[in-house]
Amino acid sequence: MFALRTRSPDSRARTGTLRLSHGEVATPAFVPLATRGVVKTLVPDEVAGIGFQMVLGNTFHLLLSPGPELIARFGGLHRFMRWPRPLITDSGGFQVFSMGHGGVADEIKGRRRAPGGEHAGGGAILSIDEQGVRFRSYLDGSLRLLSPERSMEVQAALGSDIALAFDECTPFHVSRRYTETSMRRTHRWLERCLSWHAEHGPPGQRVYGIVQGGVERDLRLESAAAVAASGCDGIAIGGSLGREQAQMLEVVGWTTAELERLAPERPRHLLGIGDIDGLVTGVELGIDTFDCAIPTRLARHGVALVPAPAHRWRLDLGRGIWRSSPEVILDGCACPACAGGFSRAYLHYLVRRRELTALRLITLHNLHYVARLMEDLRTAIDRGRLAEVACALRAGAPPGEAVSAAG
Amino acid sequence: MFALRTRSPDSRARTGTLRLSHGEVATPAFVPLATRGVVKTLVPDEVAGIGFQMVLGNTFHLLLSPGPELIARFGGLHRFMRWPRPLITDSGGFQVFSMGHGGVADEIKGRRRAPGGEHAGGGAILSIDEQGVRFRSYLDGSLRLLSPERSMEVQAALGSDIALAFDECTPFHVSRRYTETSMRRTHRWLERCLSWHAEHGPPGQRVYGIVQGGVERDLRLESAAAVAASGCDGIAIGGSLGREQAQMLEVVGWTTAELERLAPERPRHLLGIGDIDGLVTGVELGIDTFDCAIPTRLARHGVALVPAPAHRWRLDLGRGIWRSSPEVILDGCACPACAGGFSRAYLHYLVRRRELTALRLITLHNLHYVARLMEDLRTAIDRGRLAEVACALRAGAPPGEAVSAAG
Repeated sequence: MFALRTRSPDSRARTGTLRLSHGEVATPAFVPLATRGVVKTLVPDEVAGIGFQMVLGNTFHLLLSPGPELIARFGGLHRFMRWPRPLITDSGGFQVFSMGHGGVADEIKGRRRAPGGEHAGGGAILSIDEQGVRFRSYLDGSLRLLSPERSMEVQAALGSDIALAFDECTPFHVSRRYTETSMRRTHRWLERCLSWHAEHGPPGQRVYGIVQGGVERDLRLESAAAVAASGCDGIAIGGSLGREQAQMLEVVGWTTAELERLAPERPRHLLGIGDIDGLVTGVELGIDTFDCAIPTRLARHGVALVPAPAHRWRLDLGRGIWRSSPEVILDGCACPACAGGFSRAYLHYLVRRRELTALRLITLHNLHYVARLMEDLRTAIDRGRLAEVACALRAGAPPGEAVSAAG
Repeated sequence: MFALRTRSPDSRARTGTLRLSHGEVATPAFVPLATRGVVKTLVPDEVAGIGFQMVLGNTFHLLLSPGPELIARFGGLHRFMRWPRPLITDSGGFQVFSMGHGGVADEIKGRRRAPGGEHAGGGAILSIDEQGVRFRSYLDGSLRLLSPERSMEVQAALGSDIALAFDECTPFHVSRRYTETSMRRTHRWLERCLSWHAEHGPPGQRVYGIVQGGVERDLRLESAAAVAASGCDGIAIGGSLGREQAQMLEVVGWTTAELERLAPERPRHLLGIGDIDGLVTGVELGIDTFDCAIPTRLARHGVALVPAPAHRWRLDLGRGIWRSSPEVILDGCACPACAGGFSRAYLHYLVRRRELTALRLITLHNLHYVARLMEDLRTAIDRGRLAEVACALRAGAPPGEAVSAAG
């Protein structure tokens, strides 16, 4: 299922190929969100055209509407959304627990809640116990149960290439004891997911377990060991990764070091990280795939990704300083916004007037940016030059130029 | 400027070519709205790809933001919006008067007001007199004057291929006396527009006068004569065309019959008509170009155009009956929504979840539909078979098939 190609000599980074039911994915790779069976503002051909080989659908949202039964009747999510390539589905855990923990998503992601956004929950959680989670649908108020078995059943109906095991995503503010108790339950849920899947899972669907354990090193190591021992096909890293980038990287580092020891050949997915720094360092720490709302959500707020570390890689086109700027977002970028010659002034105007065309153009730009970044990182690893390329990218070399800039 | 090619033997319909500064337009043609310098949800290449050769920018909206000075600094609207082909700009009159007449737009168009939509006004009108119209900007409350000279000045800054003379667009509910008084002032405004343009207009920009006169036959004839006598390059038909389709067609028919007598070689534009019936009959009545928000606005409300006269050519994808429909919008349609295989069920789901991708796919479909319809009409006229083709289209033949269906 996962063929490693090159291991970086001076980090845990590696390139490889995920061989999945619906095709291959060159890793390390970023996986755009197709939350509701659509990468917001785009169609599948455009996503593939940018170079993405896999997208992620959200089980929670698709469960509530249009429902797995309807999607199954269409032959699964691939056919329903007309995406013939690999698909990951998450377990629904992240969204459902984000209701219960009063904003776990916000805390983990460092942002306010955006109802209707890519990771927004809404609704209300009623109970969490060994069986699973009971909650009310944010759409119609109906009572719902999400359990390990139900999550796998829904993901089976969606027919994804990779299903994620059902986990509780604990937030930063809970006690060590809660984190520990929850983590052990998550491990038991993983066993139930794998049992259900062994009997009922669709042929070819892979299952990833999820490492939890908050920001406690010993819990992360225990969780990595439990997940590695479970025999799942791949391993995802979830939960609270700390308040700051540095802590996040530390937590990921502990985990991938342990996984390198226990399950070096299995693919690793980092949940919910997609800022430029996080992607570069995540690759160095041995992550194979990433999913995150950031590139697409920023775009819908008028923010474009640019090689500007001092500005957190962000260009806010809604700001008045761009009102009469004739520049494109990023000179030399081949995305439709930049290659199309649309000025910052024009995009600023459209963003301020809430024109959908602008949100779409910036979405295309941001995804293009991230796709080129990941390409650079793969090339750099294969050429044994990741250290220089990562350094150039961190210093603000534009993706696509970083590999050559690194000499 | 306008080369007629074929005149239909059994109606006033004709084909021709508008030769404008930025290229040619095969007529009869539909002109999509690029209200704020963008055809909502699309980029210029897509609009051209569907087959449109001209779009219409709204002087009123562009005047308020980003302002003609900024657009002029970019070399005009073509360059600002990256549309290298012909552009019409309206005079701003329609929007500004829609504020003053308490919903003239709604009444003329038979719809509720949609703030922020393609023809929405907002703001407040303060006075209408011989000089022009004073109003408050809906964006910042600033006091503004729109006069014949200012309208032409703004349109000169925008650099459109065709500028429309400043007119008062009188609604249906006003008295005959008001309609008459207003119409005569509109004729005086036309003279001022042409005088200003003769001295200051950009080289190559054409000016269309606008026939007013409400639903009064004698006033329409008087207005047609006045506009024809003015020496403007083309003639638009504006104002209240009646409460119903039948009355609209009667008013247009009076006007084009008179224009056929007085100015047979000049191009005729029908303002604000774009439903399927209106386009087919408008062509038969001798209209060369049409602009209208309907195809694009319907799309953003989830309504697709289909060859279903009994349903007013509309398929409302937001309706529950499409929840599990595997059909595409229109079998055999080559638009990205239909050729892409997106089911009504999927589009229904996306429309209900307010996903921008759906609004964009339906926009592409609707414009594709109208472009094919106009192609059919041009082909039919050139082949001397308009009567049969118009009949087939009215009976529900899909555009693209109507010409062959008519035998």
